[in-house]
Amino acid sequence: MAENETGNESAPRWLSEPEQQAWYAWRRMFPLVNADIARDLTQDSGLSEADYDVLSVLGSTDGHRMRISALAVLMQWSRSRLSHQLTRMEQRGIVRREEVADDGRGAEVVLTEQGVTTIMTAAPLHVESVRRHLIDILTPEQLRTFAEVGELLRTRLGVERKTR
Amino acid sequence: MAENETGNESAPRWLSEPEQQAWYAWRRMFPLVNADIARDLTQDSGLSEADYDVLSVLGSTDGHRMRISALAVLMQWSRSRLSHQLTRMEQRGIVRREEVADDGRGAEVVLTEQGVTTIMTAAPLHVESVRRHLIDILTPEQLRTFAEVGELLRTRLGVERKTR
Repeated sequence: MAENETGNESAPRWLSEPEQQAWYAWRRMFPLVNADIARDLTQDSGLSEADYDVLSVLGSTDGHRMRISALAVLMQWSRSRLSHQLTRMEQRGIVRREEVADDGRGAEVVLTEQGVTTIMTAAPLHVESVRRHLIDILTPEQLRTFAEVGELLRTRLGVERKTR
Repeated sequence: MAENETGNESAPRWLSEPEQQAWYAWRRMFPLVNADIARDLTQDSGLSEADYDVLSVLGSTDGHRMRISALAVLMQWSRSRLSHQLTRMEQRGIVRREEVADDGRGAEVVLTEQGVTTIMTAAPLHVESVRRHLIDILTPEQLRTFAEVGELLRTRLGVERKTR
């Protein structure tokens, strides 16, 4: 909405042309690219992005296992969302929950043999998809900017959350 | 899947360290920033992001009105998703649908007076939120890279969709 339409005496700091272009790009590019990558994941491996995230985190740990509480923190998911997700994955036989001798840190989730096969088969196809829809399209400098901005926003958010 | 679609299966092209940093940043920063901006929008103005998008598009048109079919294309939403959204907004009195003399292009959606007031009140608060959580944090060069990459991905997607 144009400045002269608002009549706001506090003079809102409307976005400049380059700022607006960056904001529109931000809003549009993520859903578009993520939809393409999610579609590939389903077609190639029958997995959702949530399935893939859980499998790949577990696949990268020693013993293919992790405390459910730690996994929730790492993925920035609520315990309840993760619990529903793990139940669905358990029903498909790709993970299982394991009670741990009670040290107060709660149950673990473990990749089953089928889960290991699933992530090992899916990973090379997924990385190709990520390259095709994003990584291989960008210049090394553009990639560096994304990493920088990601780090900047993450740090800033951490600081904001702590001071709230 | 044909071999030319998967690449060389014996040697997956795993992401390099800088590529992986860019990919993780991409995955994480968008949900984090958008959650903050969406939370502000609800607290400041009682609007969802979808509400805001519809109101701000209509607010920027002549006569604060648009064909529903054109709005769906512009927002890249399905007709059905947009229709449900407009019904909810109509119930709150901020937009109304209007039948148009039948020229085969379908109904229009129009901002009500209350809708105009709503977007005029919300816009200055929203732009402050967008600045605080994203735009003011980035350097002009980082903003330029986002705009460039957004344009690149959008163009590429357009080409892909046409050749599919």
